[in-house]
Amino acid sequence: MGRLTARKPVVKITIGAQSRRRPDTLAVEEPLEIRVAGEPMAITMRTPGHDVELAAGFLVSEGVIAQGAQFQTAIHCGGPGTGGTDGNTYNILDVTLAPDVALPDPDLARRFYTTSSCGLCGTASIDAVEKTSSHAVADDGASVDSAALVTFPDRLREHQDVFEKTGGLHAAALFDAETSDLLVLREDVGRHNAVDKVVGWAVLADRLPLRGTVLQVSGRASFELVQKAVMAGIPILSAVSAPSSLAVDLAEASGLTLAGFVRGTSMNLYSRPDRVRVDIAMPA
Amino acid sequence: MGRLTARKPVVKITIGAQSRRRPDTLAVEEPLEIRVAGEPMAITMRTPGHDVELAAGFLVSEGVIAQGAQFQTAIHCGGPGTGGTDGNTYNILDVTLAPDVALPDPDLARRFYTTSSCGLCGTASIDAVEKTSSHAVADDGASVDSAALVTFPDRLREHQDVFEKTGGLHAAALFDAETSDLLVLREDVGRHNAVDKVVGWAVLADRLPLRGTVLQVSGRASFELVQKAVMAGIPILSAVSAPSSLAVDLAEASGLTLAGFVRGTSMNLYSRPDRVRVDIAMPA
Repeated sequence: MGRLTARKPVVKITIGAQSRRRPDTLAVEEPLEIRVAGEPMAITMRTPGHDVELAAGFLVSEGVIAQGAQFQTAIHCGGPGTGGTDGNTYNILDVTLAPDVALPDPDLARRFYTTSSCGLCGTASIDAVEKTSSHAVADDGASVDSAALVTFPDRLREHQDVFEKTGGLHAAALFDAETSDLLVLREDVGRHNAVDKVVGWAVLADRLPLRGTVLQVSGRASFELVQKAVMAGIPILSAVSAPSSLAVDLAEASGLTLAGFVRGTSMNLYSRPDRVRVDIAMPA
Repeated sequence: MGRLTARKPVVKITIGAQSRRRPDTLAVEEPLEIRVAGEPMAITMRTPGHDVELAAGFLVSEGVIAQGAQFQTAIHCGGPGTGGTDGNTYNILDVTLAPDVALPDPDLARRFYTTSSCGLCGTASIDAVEKTSSHAVADDGASVDSAALVTFPDRLREHQDVFEKTGGLHAAALFDAETSDLLVLREDVGRHNAVDKVVGWAVLADRLPLRGTVLQVSGRASFELVQKAVMAGIPILSAVSAPSSLAVDLAEASGLTLAGFVRGTSMNLYSRPDRVRVDIAMPA
């Protein structure tokens, strides 16, 4: 886990002042290959650490597993490499699933984007998520107080240890909607990886579906992030920045509450606003 | 090209005030499948528009083409869909390359991440870029004035028409290093797509390699963005936010100038600082 950051020399230029040479701390980015039963499934550029959670969360996002018991073992493997002193680069993770889990199609990435009926379109992508998800979020009766929700981005930022040092990491965190407790937070150079690590933590702790929780992310809300929330059974997704059109469409279709521009004292609710409680100040 | 933005109803909550229902403008996100000679190569979630440039730039980034003449035709195709009124979803683009271009391996994504010698590691990814690139950037004698370079992020932002409306788009722009002229700017929900559209514009205009240019991006600098700059022969990459460790490693190995945290009146130079000219104010 000691490879979250790296030090590099940098020349800092300030207009009108003397340039300075100094060391800078950077977020580490390295490839990770996820294999299932020895077969390569995906390569992602990630920040090392919590790799087993990343792999488990990725398999939940892709609809391969939905329970912790379906994920049996994960071992780092690697040939004679240039990495660690023992020649293992720790950048290949081989996962063994329970015998009753169908081995995934190696062309996993395509499943959410194509159907035979309509060539390729956003509607087909939404249908595919609906069909693949094991957990329904539409009927989750959770609700969160709006005054609590607006504090989640700052709480996310406060706990971003590596971001503090590098300015270069996305983060995702899970909060209990009722108590506002922070359950888990993960950082990564890739925002999809940060979410996969959070979901992987949950599935390995047998906490899926994640009913009654809020997923807070540090950036924008894309189709892919809403997909990951839905696949994990998370009813509320809160983003610091804007959602895309397809993120909103999927949130509406799935019955997920999507909050965007959650900043300062305000937010926009794009779907299922009924899960966000508002105390209106009554005129005296 | 009319699908860059979409309008959705939104509930705006402000703590202590009355909630309001109003329309919000969102950046459109839709899948695009890029095919070469009918074979699916990649699916990316992108903002529609400049799809031919996106495909051309993607093929440059992946080392399939390096000159405009190698890209012959591109046609949108699609089955009976739910999209436009004519049933075409405009989300599949089939590219025909010149007869002398080797058809790409369908497993394109893997080529920059794996080699047989070392399992999987960042060093192998860097070697693969070096071997695949047709254009050398190390010997590019271009230089840019630091006082001009710090203005590029604001100029990028000023020209981001869709970002103004949605807050939801990344952007990439190409500047002439000598004159500081803005050559082209593209926006997309995916920052890699924005860069591919810029590079695609250039290759279709037969401007590769992009010697003497600066690529300005709106976010962070990852391995993938440095790879795209190197593959297009761009000598200087400037990012508003932090680079990753592997982005710096690839920039060093390729001889590309990588600037990060380009904000206000200062910047950090992570590699080849000799291309950024600094006028030091002399003590009176």
